[in-house]
Amino acid sequence: MATVYVTRRMQFNAAHRLHNPNKSDEWNKATFGKCNSPNYHGHNFILEVTVGGEPDPDTGYVVDLGILKKILEEKVISKVDHANLNLEVAFLHGVLPSTENFAIGIWKQIENELPSGTLHSIKLTETENNSVVYRGE
Amino acid sequence: MATVYVTRRMQFNAAHRLHNPNKSDEWNKATFGKCNSPNYHGHNFILEVTVGGEPDPDTGYVVDLGILKKILEEKVISKVDHANLNLEVAFLHGVLPSTENFAIGIWKQIENELPSGTLHSIKLTETENNSVVYRGE
Amino acid sequence: MATVYVTRRMQFNAAHRLHNPNKSDEWNKATFGKCNSPNYHGHNFILEVTVGGEPDPDTGYVVDLGILKKILEEKVISKVDHANLNLEVAFLHGVLPSTENFAIGIWKQIENELPSGTLHSIKLTETENNSVVYRGE
Amino acid sequence: MATVYVTRRMQFNAAHRLHNPNKSDEWNKATFGKCNSPNYHGHNFILEVTVGGEPDPDTGYVVDLGILKKILEEKVISKVDHANLNLEVAFLHGVLPSTENFAIGIWKQIENELPSGTLHSIKLTETENNSVVYRGE
Amino acid sequence: MATVYVTRRMQFNAAHRLHNPNKSDEWNKATFGKCNSPNYHGHNFILEVTVGGEPDPDTGYVVDLGILKKILEEKVISKVDHANLNLEVAFLHGVLPSTENFAIGIWKQIENELPSGTLHSIKLTETENNSVVYRGE
Amino acid sequence: MATVYVTRRMQFNAAHRLHNPNKSDEWNKATFGKCNSPNYHGHNFILEVTVGGEPDPDTGYVVDLGILKKILEEKVISKVDHANLNLEVAFLHGVLPSTENFAIGIWKQIENELPSGTLHSIKLTETENNSVVYRGE
Repeated sequence: MATVYVTRRMQFNAAHRLHNPNKSDEWNKATFGKCNSPNYHGHNFILEVTVGGEPDPDTGYVVDLGILKKILEEKVISKVDHANLNLEVAFLHGVLPSTENFAIGIWKQIENELPSGTLHSIKLTETENNSVVYRGE
Repeated sequence: MATVYVTRRMQFNAAHRLHNPNKSDEWNKATFGKCNSPNYHGHNFILEVTVGGEPDPDTGYVVDLGILKKILEEKVISKVDHANLNLEVAFLHGVLPSTENFAIGIWKQIENELPSGTLHSIKLTETENNSVVYRGE
Repeated sequence: MATVYVTRRMQFNAAHRLHNPNKSDEWNKATFGKCNSPNYHGHNFILEVTVGGEPDPDTGYVVDLGILKKILEEKVISKVDHANLNLEVAFLHGVLPSTENFAIGIWKQIENELPSGTLHSIKLTETENNSVVYRGE
Repeated sequence: MATVYVTRRMQFNAAHRLHNPNKSDEWNKATFGKCNSPNYHGHNFILEVTVGGEPDPDTGYVVDLGILKKILEEKVISKVDHANLNLEVAFLHGVLPSTENFAIGIWKQIENELPSGTLHSIKLTETENNSVVYRGE
Repeated sequence: MATVYVTRRMQFNAAHRLHNPNKSDEWNKATFGKCNSPNYHGHNFILEVTVGGEPDPDTGYVVDLGILKKILEEKVISKVDHANLNLEVAFLHGVLPSTENFAIGIWKQIENELPSGTLHSIKLTETENNSVVYRGE
Repeated sequence: MATVYVTRRMQFNAAHRLHNPNKSDEWNKATFGKCNSPNYHGHNFILEVTVGGEPDPDTGYVVDLGILKKILEEKVISKVDHANLNLEVAFLHGVLPSTENFAIGIWKQIENELPSGTLHSIKLTETENNSVVYRGE
């Protein structure tokens, strides 16, 4: 009995802006600075999804990475790639698209597509200098 | 007499969309696909500027990288970082912001800030899978 | 009293194929796809071994990385570098060489070469898009 | 009139061995060392194809990267990914698959798929420590 | 209630040497080898600081990365960048500057600048082949 | 007849400071800023040496990378790794160790160890943001 953690990395490009519509423009500008820029900016986001479990005795796989990739493409990448996170992504509707909230949203999108309890973490890298990890806790 | 090429790397985040306003929406969609997405997408662009010349006997420098960085920040980064390349960048006004055209625009922005003939190349990396180089020719 | 985790990264190149000899060729092809390709394919594997413990007051080291490197070279790298994982590696004999099983095999190879309880994790990166971690649990 | 060089990066995994069948086993072993290992080893090869030309006034593209990607997938990746370079690749038949010869072979595979004179270079990275460039000269 | 871990990456360049002044020169040479070299050597250190907590409902931030960056610049980078770790860094006075001890020292420098219990880990990468993590335990 | 360019990448760690002993301390401080710091700082330098030529018909090699590595280790790495570039490197004696001058020095060290006219370029990367290339011109 051995638990191995398997990570699949994917990439997508999206635009966003940090803006809280319940607050004044002054508050938004003071709080978010350049990230509040009105006509959006964007990133090459890197998504790393980690699944944990025991390798299957027949395949040696914790998870078939081809199947995991298909889930991620259908539930996440197809919805966010070349998209505007503030305007076009249903699973972020009403959510301020900080990297933190975005990672939580991705967790919710895929959690039930995987065997119960196997999703271990979502890592989302926004730039080479910042990233977040969410573990469903 | 020795010519050395010195490269300074910088990074910025911007939104853009590929769209030719002189063409129909159908043409744009067929030509640019996802990159024509109406509400923009974005990238972490990596800019590498190369300057060539003989090292100064007193400093060992082809160019003082602190001065080069200041030129790049003033003439390029401050204008494109967290900006929308289609709407907000004066030096790209009327230019379709493909990576190719963007690199040519950056060359023109800084060419005259450096000693004549010393700017050697502009490399602009849009994603980990594509990049362009312009050498002023 | 402080526990610090120290990681040594190494690299090697190996060939393998995913194939379960107890199953039919059809099953293998359907399950493993291109990874079942009969004449093997290969990877530049990246191995990251993490050891945890308290820094020694005299050296500031949790582990002498020179000694750790020697253990890894003798027990792992010399056996898998430029090798065929299906045919030539004694510690993988009878094991389907998925990245998961390979990481577990490496753990077993070195666990007893280190002070008891200090081996913390084996990370094995197969391509830039997939990797596994095993923590001996 | 401006010439811009555009690079598309792709990745594939293959097995190979360096072995000259016209020479003795001793010569091969002495010449190629571990790279002559009989049951193959492998790499995550990185292929970077550079095309040069003037950006199209309507699209801003030197080349449509979607079309370039399709050419590379059809003419190169589909033939070498998860393959054995010594046994299974028609365009390397009779060629010793050193990285040098492999890059020349890739050039010949795609040269005529692109507008005459536009293919600028093939860069092939075999490990993080070695790579080759071929410019058709 | 969701806990997200946010990482800020920074870089600095420093010189150091591994030398225990309470031990003989022979002991130091035998223990530290090249790292004991008398006139110092140096590294491009990469520092990754991780803070954990619940995203603020108004900002979506676990921590304002601009504020975190300012803390790191004031308490760490300004003291170690382009410095000699053995001679010039007050918070390492009397400490053998191994990567392990250096990471513990950085933890102590910033722990009280952040809300209690939110600092999660310090990762310090010394070369592309070695790194350490300290989690305050 | 085909010319292929082969690159070998190596790494080393060294300390240096930018200081011109023929100038005043004020001039040095004003010119070099933090890089003039009196007790040195350091870097993980990355050295990439490129050799050009026709692949040998028997081996497929432009150059045997094992031999090239041995030359680089003997003539460069053994002299600069874990060393102080201002004090301890004979081939930099009397030279201000800027990255530019250092690259020229490395060229001179190895030029005559290789077949005449085959050394193509020396690339030296000092930090992730700056690098130089020297081509012997």
